[in-house]
Amino acid sequence: MKQILPQIQNSIGSINYQWAFGLIHYFALQGVTQAVISPGSRSTPLALACEKHSDIETWIQIDERSAGFFALGLAQRKQQPVILICTSGSAVTNWFPAVVEANHSYTPLLLLSADRPAELQNCGANQTIDQSFIFGSHVREFITVEHADETLLKSNYLKRITTQAFSKTLNQKPGPVHLNIPFREPLLPRRFTADQLNHFINRLSQQVTESSTPIIQSQISKASISETRRDLLVETLDSGNGLIICGRLTHYEHQGFHKLLIALAEKLKCPVLIDPLSNLRLLSSSNSHFIYNYDHFLKNHHGDNKLTPEWIIRFGQFPTSKKLLQYLEQLDSHTILVSSYGDCLDPIHKANTILNTTPDRLCQQLLEASIKPNSKQWLKSWQNSEQNSETKIHKALDVCHDLFEGHIIHKLLGIIPDNSLLFSGNSMAIRDFDTFITRASAHDKNLSLYCNRGTSGIDGNLSTFFGLLANQPQTTKNYGVAVLGDLSFYHDMNGLLIAKQLNTLGYNASIIIINNNGGGIFNYLPQNQLDDFDKLWKTEINLNFKHSAQLYGLDYHRIEHHDDLESQLSKAISGSGIQIIEVIIDQKTSVECHTIL
Amino acid sequence: MKQILPQIQNSIGSINYQWAFGLIHYFALQGVTQAVISPGSRSTPLALACEKHSDIETWIQIDERSAGFFALGLAQRKQQPVILICTSGSAVTNWFPAVVEANHSYTPLLLLSADRPAELQNCGANQTIDQSFIFGSHVREFITVEHADETLLKSNYLKRITTQAFSKTLNQKPGPVHLNIPFREPLLPRRFTADQLNHFINRLSQQVTESSTPIIQSQISKASISETRRDLLVETLDSGNGLIICGRLTHYEHQGFHKLLIALAEKLKCPVLIDPLSNLRLLSSSNSHFIYNYDHFLKNHHGDNKLTPEWIIRFGQFPTSKKLLQYLEQLDSHTILVSSYGDCLDPIHKANTILNTTPDRLCQQLLEASIKPNSKQWLKSWQNSEQNSETKIHKALDVCHDLFEGHIIHKLLGIIPDNSLLFSGNSMAIRDFDTFITRASAHDKNLSLYCNRGTSGIDGNLSTFFGLLANQPQTTKNYGVAVLGDLSFYHDMNGLLIAKQLNTLGYNASIIIINNNGGGIFNYLPQNQLDDFDKLWKTEINLNFKHSAQLYGLDYHRIEHHDDLESQLSKAISGSGIQIIEVIIDQKTSVECHTIL
Repeated sequence: MKQILPQIQNSIGSINYQWAFGLIHYFALQGVTQAVISPGSRSTPLALACEKHSDIETWIQIDERSAGFFALGLAQRKQQPVILICTSGSAVTNWFPAVVEANHSYTPLLLLSADRPAELQNCGANQTIDQSFIFGSHVREFITVEHADETLLKSNYLKRITTQAFSKTLNQKPGPVHLNIPFREPLLPRRFTADQLNHFINRLSQQVTESSTPIIQSQISKASISETRRDLLVETLDSGNGLIICGRLTHYEHQGFHKLLIALAEKLKCPVLIDPLSNLRLLSSSNSHFIYNYDHFLKNHHGDNKLTPEWIIRFGQFPTSKKLLQYLEQLDSHTILVSSYGDCLDPIHKANTILNTTPDRLCQQLLEASIKPNSKQWLKSWQNSEQNSETKIHKALDVCHDLFEGHIIHKLLGIIPDNSLLFSGNSMAIRDFDTFITRASAHDKNLSLYCNRGTSGIDGNLSTFFGLLANQPQTTKNYGVAVLGDLSFYHDMNGLLIAKQLNTLGYNASIIIINNNGGGIFNYLPQNQLDDFDKLWKTEINLNFKHSAQLYGLDYHRIEHHDDLESQLSKAISGSGIQIIEVIIDQKTSVECHTIL
Repeated sequence: MKQILPQIQNSIGSINYQWAFGLIHYFALQGVTQAVISPGSRSTPLALACEKHSDIETWIQIDERSAGFFALGLAQRKQQPVILICTSGSAVTNWFPAVVEANHSYTPLLLLSADRPAELQNCGANQTIDQSFIFGSHVREFITVEHADETLLKSNYLKRITTQAFSKTLNQKPGPVHLNIPFREPLLPRRFTADQLNHFINRLSQQVTESSTPIIQSQISKASISETRRDLLVETLDSGNGLIICGRLTHYEHQGFHKLLIALAEKLKCPVLIDPLSNLRLLSSSNSHFIYNYDHFLKNHHGDNKLTPEWIIRFGQFPTSKKLLQYLEQLDSHTILVSSYGDCLDPIHKANTILNTTPDRLCQQLLEASIKPNSKQWLKSWQNSEQNSETKIHKALDVCHDLFEGHIIHKLLGIIPDNSLLFSGNSMAIRDFDTFITRASAHDKNLSLYCNRGTSGIDGNLSTFFGLLANQPQTTKNYGVAVLGDLSFYHDMNGLLIAKQLNTLGYNASIIIINNNGGGIFNYLPQNQLDDFDKLWKTEINLNFKHSAQLYGLDYHRIEHHDDLESQLSKAISGSGIQIIEVIIDQKTSVECHTIL
């Protein structure tokens, strides 16, 4: 630290600053470029250090829960750690929903919570709670940062802990890391005039950022499997017809994988079931190996031999489709999980082998090996089912005259600009994307579809979308669309405060609320037979979201009829700024149309 | 369980129900009467068991964060455990802000989280996270409930764990207890028609509730101090002039304490500094021993001997006033903490003695003892300062022509009906209550003032208020008023979904938003000198809360001028249903008026 931090003054106030500026600067040297700050007093040194650092972009969100999800979106879009800052006390606990989602979606977050010093712990001091290990098993590491201290400033302590935290947040298994950072008062150097104070802060910031060289962090390691394991794998693949299933991938896993997977599928003559969150469906609709409509045709699969594989290779997260889950549950195929981060994502307990390698590395290794392809008939059977379902789904879209979810997704995929960001809510929305991103509606627009599928919560959806949007590469005609239900919209309405900022900054996006007035998904569960269904599950909230749009000064559109859908959707998407589009869906119609499928 | 649970069917679906109904029924037998439910699928048996139980009143709130705080309010008003129910996954983590507040405000909550069964843990199953010990040190106990099981149903297992949980949530040190409850599918008995299913649920509910006798739970024990300790204490009190300070008390501590404290103060001729959250200020303005305005006159105290006590007895939480804290910090008096729940609430490290007894018990013991009273001059000095400040504060209220917080509190206390509930936000609101509940403005209306002062967060304020309101005793002209800043209002706007329900149910209340457009409190901190003050601390949100009121169909009033304050406030408070009153405050004016004091 000696080289980079000047000895301006030795009061607690100034050491707090050297401490916070050092900490943030080391994170910047590792490659952190963004911080999301929720205002507070105890976190003053940290907030200022981010704001003043020339390599760090700061965002403000008052509600820490929404802030957490906004940071999650930012981090997911680039697979790059994002800093979160909040003050001490209950503020920290508001991050928890985003932290568990980050844990399960492998999203790197650096949670920097300010805290009161040791002498104020456990004695009834204001805004003071036990923040140690507060996120339990849901962070990769918890680091108790020492109190700001001159001796430690002169050591390489800050460099060591930031390197450790950054490494834990990104390497091996990306995820959140929590640093709890106590500060003693005064939080600002005392006895300075305003001018002196601002001068001190600016000088410190300048001196810190001008100094020292970046720290090169290794990225996630791309381990190959051993030759022995590869030979055993080839033996399995040679044993009969098989299937590749590709679930949700992280941004990091997705890079470079697409072409290798196509090459492998062609080499093996292998059907590849592609989950909507694999982000392969919206790229490759001309590829005859990719199977889109399995959620539709597998519901009628009752041990059909024509669709029974000898082996299965699974990439990414367990797929969204419940029909696929039920199909897989009754199989006895040799199942190989490709696990980039070492987890066994296998809720049906079918894995025979877990390979700790990345999807692209495994494809490369298998492309180099000599493997017997599947029979032509095998691939053909899948393609026939696929085509059959494709026809039926599109017929259902035509037959249903009243507005339902299928129409929205179908039309949206036609209208949405190329290279757009697409975000899906959980509950019904992602299931409808699964069903209605057919081959014909896919359009190959290179869309990126995201969804909080780590824990599949209805919380934080809007904020996650805005985070993804804010980090969307700024190419021409770039656009973002979120599609989510009324309960998910309601749950994170506070996230719209950032929408207001994004609006001012010139971002363009649409939020489509599929308003079926409550928990429409429960209509598909046995609970719908109960006398208490309406109160306990359907939970109509009867809100007109026009008022939410007005609260934040956002444009609002309301669509109630099928005939208006395409024109209204086009109009909204061609508008500038953030558009709120509320589409009114009748639950009964929706259930009927889904049943026709 | 044998006696109360019928052997209807032995499938998993029906055992889940016998399990959930048994669990909830045992809680009802202990005395639980309320449950707050956030909809979900995995929690189906628990939600139904509450809904069907004749002794349990259920409330629905979709956002689990707001649900947590609503339950907190319900529980605080009666110091009685309230059940919370949510589904598995990130839903649970949304309770965390309310859980830490419950921990630090000694509020009994029974957190019943549904979970997926063991076979779906740690393998990438949907909506499945590690829920074990998820609230860490912030609950009194974490109980892993076993999977619903026939053998256990026949044992007294459910009786034992519910008794244990109830006891931990209320006895010794009230607070939250977390029970994590896994359920296997099917969540409802299969192969039943809708009629059969509803019949089964109704029959089970009836059979469960008709059976067995209540379990008598001991309440918090009222331990006395030993005679030796009492004699030592009397010796200290005899040694010179002393002071009693009374901070925030729990509902339980408050009962019966008021009269005993007055008797003790009179016996000892002792000034009693009463925090606004002691709930003594709004009861006893004619009592000459009670001191209201210490926050005002202690700011000028620089070691003044006339106000330097030999001893201090402190009841309840550490007081709100920062001026009082600074005064106490520089004293060297013998300090006695009265700790009902065993905690040492002493952030300034001044306690010489901690007495593990309740405020009322200690008063009784001291009233029975022979103790030398303080000097007349001692009490007089405090009374003089009190009178002096009283004059100055009211002069300031007159001198400030432009609308500021002091006017709102002063007028409100005049208008608000007797026996009303009063809720204060944190940040500026509670400090303004501290300053402006003077002797003259107190009016002795038997108001109950509440504030989330456990962790002093800006989160969950509206929901806490609605919970308190829903459990307000239904006497004539009963009323509730919340006063909070715009950031606190914004943080928990989702809580207004319950307001909509309360509106329908005929509750009357007003929410006064003191809108100074952002973090007004930071104007009083040194951060206001920084160039980045507006972005990082002031954080103007520029929201017109008229739209929030419209979203939930609530009446809205906007007050911008001092001249309109009294008439508009009267008009709103005489309206029926939930009224949103937005009072626009200029930050500069506000700082000036506070400075005149």
